[in-house]
Formats: sequence, structure tokens, C-alpha cells
Amino acid sequence: MRSNIYIGLVHYPIYDRREEVVATAVTNFDIHDIARCARTFGVGGFFVITPLDSQIQLVEKMIRHWVEGTGAVYNPTRKESLSLVRITRTIDEADREISNLWEKKVKRVATGATRHPKSIGFEIFRKLLGDRSIPFLMLFGTGWGLTQEVKDSSDYVLAPIEGKGYNHLSVRSAVAIILDRLLGDRINSSE
Amino acid sequence: MRSNIYIGLVHYPIYDRREEVVATAVTNFDIHDIARCARTFGVGGFFVITPLDSQIQLVEKMIRHWVEGTGAVYNPTRKESLSLVRITRTIDEADREISNLWEKKVKRVATGATRHPKSIGFEIFRKLLGDRSIPFLMLFGTGWGLTQEVKDSSDYVLAPIEGKGYNHLSVRSAVAIILDRLLGDRINSSE
Repeated sequence: MRSNIYIGLVHYPIYDRREEVVATAVTNFDIHDIARCARTFGVGGFFVITPLDSQIQLVEKMIRHWVEGTGAVYNPTRKESLSLVRITRTIDEADREISNLWEKKVKRVATGATRHPKSIGFEIFRKLLGDRSIPFLMLFGTGWGLTQEVKDSSDYVLAPIEGKGYNHLSVRSAVAIILDRLLGDRINSSE
Repeated sequence: MRSNIYIGLVHYPIYDRREEVVATAVTNFDIHDIARCARTFGVGGFFVITPLDSQIQLVEKMIRHWVEGTGAVYNPTRKESLSLVRITRTIDEADREISNLWEKKVKRVATGATRHPKSIGFEIFRKLLGDRSIPFLMLFGTGWGLTQEVKDSSDYVLAPIEGKGYNHLSVRSAVAIILDRLLGDRINSSE
């Protein structure tokens, strides 16, 4: 059965440390780590979202190397994970790709390190995902996080990962933890 | 109350892709991501374990920059996370540091992507950690993972994170998921 969960790594619009809206550069480690998580937990697709031509070319080159080039022979597990990566210029474009495929409206889910009036807990969201007829696009922010507008316009905002008075996980770690909480094998983990 | 959980990122002895025992190079992203996870989940200390002088100097320089240097002003949250980092040449040396501090024998816990005869599940291990009088050192392998000998000589081996037919998470993602499963706020996640 095809997965109804897609993830998007947003490089624009994003806050920088001064809360100004910027486009961040793509980080190679983000793509590798998140693609491997996506493959591990059976995500339908991983959208790298950036409007910058230089960054699009960089990601395309990287994916060609590992999916079609010498990298695919050197390490086939990277081919498997990076095959999930799509590049789009905007969040809307990623949304359209999914809705075209599903012929359905996509539910957007924002994530972040702080609470939002619309925040829902992991267990509730895990149940929502159980309706396999609805496609979901989960958005993760790079830099200092998704803008307020992206959060406000999403259908859901996922509760932050609560730390011991510290909420500065890398986006790579946040994606890993969130996918595990939503899609991880609860039977094994509660053995 | 001080944490009884310590983690060690092992760069030797480690398997390479041909299952030969090697010392791997330190990856900056590993240190940052894992230190931030350690701080988030209240880990007692994060040992970077490498016998190579060049690598020790590299980590020391990086930590000085973020904990004492200009980095500490630029991004104080990195100071907070990297303050947890200790460098040792061997697993035994990390073990000794903890046992000296606690005046107790340390329980060693190996992790990895495959099952081991001694594998225990996350829920069982979560309960073991509840005995706050015992210090635990959890070992994570870089490269192609911890050697069989390290696993065999540990007190426990933690069950692998089960994916959908794919077990190639980065060590950064594995640490994030494992710390969340063991130490994450179950109340929030089950809201």
C-alpha cells in the first residue's frame, strides 16, 4: 500500500536568527539523513523545497551521483533513500505534485520548536494518519524555523518535541524523532 | 537530580564497509547533532571516543570555539550542548571517568542496526534506566558500526530500530530516535 505521508524540507520562507524571512542554503547532511529516515519509516516522498537555482542544481547533482552515478554502485542504500527525493521551488508546488498524484486535497502539517494555538499531540496525529485515503505533507523548517504564516495557513501544527528546558534540536534530529513517533514500530519499541 | 545516562560515540574500534576494524574520522555534524540531542533529553555526558591525535585536536578546537570562543556569544545554545562533550581515547577511559565520578561499576550498553543474542527491547531498557543508582554508558558506532567484540563484552545490547526493510539510519538519526524512545516525554507524545 502506498504511503500517505510526504515530508518537505523548507528552505524558503524561513526565519533567520533575527526573525527575518530568508532562503537558507541546502545542507548535504540534511538530505542524506532525512532521506534515510524517510526510507526507514516508509514515507511516500521527500520534497527539498528551495527557490534558488544554485541550490536546485546542487541537490540535482548530488542525487544524480548517488542514484545514477558511481555512488549508486559504491553504496546502493543511498540510491534507495535518495530515490525518494523530489525538488520543488515552493511549498505549493510540492502540494500540487501530491494532489495531482492522489487527485485529492493535501492536508498540510507544520512542525516547529514552539507551541502554536493549533498544536496537536503526536498520538492524535498518529490516529489522523491512519485514514489512508488522505495525503499529508509534513513541513520542516531549516534555519530558525518555518514562518508564522506557513504555520497559520497549515491544516495542523504538530506539538514540539519537549526537551528538558532546551529546544534546539537540529532539523535532522527533529525529523528522525517525529517520524519515529508517528510511524515507528510501536510493538518493537514496547517489547 | 544528576542523570545516570552517558553516551559514547565510538570512532575506534569500528567496522568499515568490508568489516575490517578501523578508526573513523570525526564528523562535525555528529558532534553538534548528538550534543544537542543529549542536552534536549538530559543526558549526563557525551563522550567522543577516538585514539587519533589529529581528531582529538579537531574536536578540542571545535569545542573551544563554541564553549569559550566567539561561538559562545554568537550561539549560546551550542555552548550549552557542547559543554556536555568529553573526549577520551578509548571506551575504557570513558567508562573509568564515569565510574570514578559515581564510585560505581558502569553498565555498558551497545547499540546497532542488527539483532544480537543479548538484544533487549526499548521498554525493558527504559525500566532498567529507572534505577537511578546505576550509571549507564550507551555506545554508538560510527562507520559500519561497533565491533562484535564491543557488543559481546557489553552488559546489554539494545534492539535495533526496525524500519520497513531498511536499516541504514545515520548515527545522528539513530541517537536522536533512541534517546527519545528512552528519555522522551511520553506524556506529551501520547497526548
